[in-house]
Amino acid sequence: MASGWFYLSCLVLGSLGSMCILFTAYWMQFWCGGFAWDGSTHTFNWHPVLTVAGMVVFYGAGSLVYRLPQSWLGPKLPWKLLHAALHLMAFSLTVVGLVAVFKFHNHNHIANLYSLHSWLGITAVFLFACQWFLGFAIFLLPWASLWLRSLLKPIHVFFGASILSLSIASVISGINEKLFFTLKNATKPYSSLPSQAVFANCTGMLVVTFGLLVLYILLASSWKRPEPGILTDRQLLLQPRPGSPPFPVAYMPVTTGQPHEPW
Amino acid sequence: MASGWFYLSCLVLGSLGSMCILFTAYWMQFWCGGFAWDGSTHTFNWHPVLTVAGMVVFYGAGSLVYRLPQSWLGPKLPWKLLHAALHLMAFSLTVVGLVAVFKFHNHNHIANLYSLHSWLGITAVFLFACQWFLGFAIFLLPWASLWLRSLLKPIHVFFGASILSLSIASVISGINEKLFFTLKNATKPYSSLPSQAVFANCTGMLVVTFGLLVLYILLASSWKRPEPGILTDRQLLLQPRPGSPPFPVAYMPVTTGQPHEPW
Repeated sequence: MASGWFYLSCLVLGSLGSMCILFTAYWMQFWCGGFAWDGSTHTFNWHPVLTVAGMVVFYGAGSLVYRLPQSWLGPKLPWKLLHAALHLMAFSLTVVGLVAVFKFHNHNHIANLYSLHSWLGITAVFLFACQWFLGFAIFLLPWASLWLRSLLKPIHVFFGASILSLSIASVISGINEKLFFTLKNATKPYSSLPSQAVFANCTGMLVVTFGLLVLYILLASSWKRPEPGILTDRQLLLQPRPGSPPFPVAYMPVTTGQPHEPW
Repeated sequence: MASGWFYLSCLVLGSLGSMCILFTAYWMQFWCGGFAWDGSTHTFNWHPVLTVAGMVVFYGAGSLVYRLPQSWLGPKLPWKLLHAALHLMAFSLTVVGLVAVFKFHNHNHIANLYSLHSWLGITAVFLFACQWFLGFAIFLLPWASLWLRSLLKPIHVFFGASILSLSIASVISGINEKLFFTLKNATKPYSSLPSQAVFANCTGMLVVTFGLLVLYILLASSWKRPEPGILTDRQLLLQPRPGSPPFPVAYMPVTTGQPHEPW
């Protein structure tokens, strides 16, 4: 039952994530003239698609690697590599999305980084870069002590969720801003809710729904990788298949303040 | 040490929260003409101040009631009442803030609820209303069983954090939108970052910082109300004063799937 809910959530998440990217791309293609790399407004159009794909969808997917029950068994290194690789892909998409908007601004002599949307977005990207490099240095390279890893893990998880929240706030303000720009001199202004406005507003609400679902799966305690020695009833139900070897678990009282596992 | 960090965080939080309200009020007073209740743009000016105060600052403060170590001792009912009262105050401020913007729109024949900012904001307020009434019915009135309360508590906590996240995204898009409106025909447009724009952008970043700090305190496991039978080393340090009666704790192994306490 618990694993059923988890995989159903993953299915909903996959569908929502795909819809977020496809809806943003469709908005840019159908209402905003499509894509190019020549410094025109069509260059800008890569920005919403790539930042939604990078900072929200791939970022969200990469964050949930350790919630897959398969990642709880055997060596953790392959899952760490997948976690890092998905986030590197998310970061790369985001950087190309940023290059697109800077190229468009510079080509059209528009100032960079003046709106609150851009301040928040660039903060999220900066924190993401710090998070990735610190995560790589502390959790992937072998030098850091168990003590240091156990100290930094909750901070890494908290900043991971915070960066996603900042990204969502940034996406929402970005869609809002883009609609005010695009529909400024339109025959049907934003306030009369033309089809483009309804579509883009719905895309924004989809992004919010996706983000909240990621945060729910990330924070739901019964879907977290169990600490050795502590396993909930629901997690016991999440073994991959009947007959597979059980988790290496010995029931014992909680002792806090000590690192339990190789992170 | 743990309690020192907690109270330092509360101090920072109180300062940040006050600054969020004061900065928003100062922006509206100094650059946007001040406050009135006559349907003019001065009526609108109540909207940012009251929604930041309600949906962010009072909401955040109300959310953290159970993180106060004093709330862990003795009967829980007074703390529940404080939690509900602070949120009712937050909701009331928000409703007046909404009335202000509707009054301004209606007086000036501007459409209501068309922007993504307004869609997200009204969703946050609607969820807040549902959350408050469900919380009141399930956790404050005495009829609900322990089983139902333990089932709904994580959902209540998750939606609590989600509503705050939605509110912050809504505030950010609202400030962004307001600046584009206000500075549209100004001699120094938004893109040249006049002092108003810098001030309001900084106010937005303050709101984000406040929100993330609330979420950190809310989610940090060592600052949560301990379950009877489970107490971390750090929580043991959070006793109110030397010589005060200890928590009613007996050390025992974790048994999950059973409700532990009267919520």
